[in-house]
Amino acid sequence: MAPVERVATFDNDGTLWIEQPIYNQFTFAIDRVKATSNQRPEWKTQEPFASILKGDLKALAASGEKGMLEIVAATHSGMTTADFNKTVKEWLATAKHPRFKMRYTDLVYQPMIELLDYLRANGFKTFIVSGGGVEFMRAFADKTYGIPPEQVIGSSGVTKYQMWDASPVLIKMPKVLFVDDGPGKPEGIDHFIGRRPIFAFGNSNGDKEMLEWTAAGDGLRFMGLVYHTDAEREYAYGPAGGLPDSKVGTFSQALMDEATGKGWVIANMKNDWKTIFPAAKSNP
Amino acid sequence: MAPVERVATFDNDGTLWIEQPIYNQFTFAIDRVKATSNQRPEWKTQEPFASILKGDLKALAASGEKGMLEIVAATHSGMTTADFNKTVKEWLATAKHPRFKMRYTDLVYQPMIELLDYLRANGFKTFIVSGGGVEFMRAFADKTYGIPPEQVIGSSGVTKYQMWDASPVLIKMPKVLFVDDGPGKPEGIDHFIGRRPIFAFGNSNGDKEMLEWTAAGDGLRFMGLVYHTDAEREYAYGPAGGLPDSKVGTFSQALMDEATGKGWVIANMKNDWKTIFPAAKSNP
Repeated sequence: MAPVERVATFDNDGTLWIEQPIYNQFTFAIDRVKATSNQRPEWKTQEPFASILKGDLKALAASGEKGMLEIVAATHSGMTTADFNKTVKEWLATAKHPRFKMRYTDLVYQPMIELLDYLRANGFKTFIVSGGGVEFMRAFADKTYGIPPEQVIGSSGVTKYQMWDASPVLIKMPKVLFVDDGPGKPEGIDHFIGRRPIFAFGNSNGDKEMLEWTAAGDGLRFMGLVYHTDAEREYAYGPAGGLPDSKVGTFSQALMDEATGKGWVIANMKNDWKTIFPAAKSNP
Repeated sequence: MAPVERVATFDNDGTLWIEQPIYNQFTFAIDRVKATSNQRPEWKTQEPFASILKGDLKALAASGEKGMLEIVAATHSGMTTADFNKTVKEWLATAKHPRFKMRYTDLVYQPMIELLDYLRANGFKTFIVSGGGVEFMRAFADKTYGIPPEQVIGSSGVTKYQMWDASPVLIKMPKVLFVDDGPGKPEGIDHFIGRRPIFAFGNSNGDKEMLEWTAAGDGLRFMGLVYHTDAEREYAYGPAGGLPDSKVGTFSQALMDEATGKGWVIANMKNDWKTIFPAAKSNP
């Protein structure tokens, strides 16, 4: 296949970097609630914000997906795109993962970084296609993965062009434009890339449609899934193969059955990966 | 500026190819109404379709933007993305412009093709940022302009992932997702590219915000407008500079005043362009 057709798409959370115990972007959102609460006195009594400010993570978890969406909307809108980018970069430079005590951009998967490099060395154009926020990922994808902003596809909100002091800005609005997950992944691939990948890698139920869409093209195809089986070096979750169930990055037995039935590659973290994380130069 | 930051964005209609007497995509839509009317008997009495089938272009024009949007929705949805792409390619291979009797992809502007080549030879990544339909433009942008599908940004509709006979397809829905015109251009640039251009070229009021957004960045910038002044070799329209007013590709006096006041480049077609269209090998 001609190089121009060599499109490779990768999920991000749980495929290129760590996603447990909660998505890193949710940790960022929670940290933003804490950091900006002095400007929002009403949050002291308003859920799910009150639970965050009280440090009651169990009550926060009980607020479920609806609560998390409220937190993301409140912390990802009402500022310019430039200010948001700056805030994400500052957070990534300082925040540490609760278990590994390392920066999140150091908790990427070394074998996947090598795979990205290998594909690019062979004429592939590499893309991220993730349910995560597109602007959040673009703040680090270039430096961390070698994937430039225009090759990052994610969920997104509406922005609004406005003049502030005679200068144009883009304001992030609390309104969803596109959800890049499940069937939204092939839709997003078509919308943003306009070509079908010949190579796709994911790790959870949300990647099923992207892998099916990739598989349905002509000629040779590669479909892969990261299977998190290493509780010692990272995390073990499924529930595929009897691993503990997980709300974050669910890998169901049905997905495992489909993948094995169709000959998709399963990267079993415990058995197949010599190294999980790169030697982190930036951490002690 | 490092090559990775060298983003150049171009409007399409009236900037890279001809847009008079009506947008080429509207001609495509009208042709599709005629070609598929036997499957839609109700169109015989339903406006604006009835006017098209009767060949009454004056009545069609009277239906205005609302009428055109109905025609686009009716002819750009209800099929798979693959089938739509095939239909556009077939149309482009055969349809001829009413005045020049040439294929539309031969009615591109030679100086702009040379400019695209020149920018790419100097490390620029070239993008289309147009109000036209993204899938319509992707059907020819790679071959005609050397701009691959993932670097074409345009207006778009919602697509829906579905299984047909156990194969996944994307169905084009009659629902607008994104309008890439006016303030929608910087919003689209941010949404799809995630970086601010340092070079932008347009030709009409709908490009004003893209040029302002480009101009507002740091460092050296280039902002340009094609000014259609050549009624003999192409078309002359404005109303800037006293040229005839045009609903298609309106270039207002206010835009001209802003452009000259800010030092944007005006490419005056009659005075500045030695050649308008490439020597069309594919036409008699």
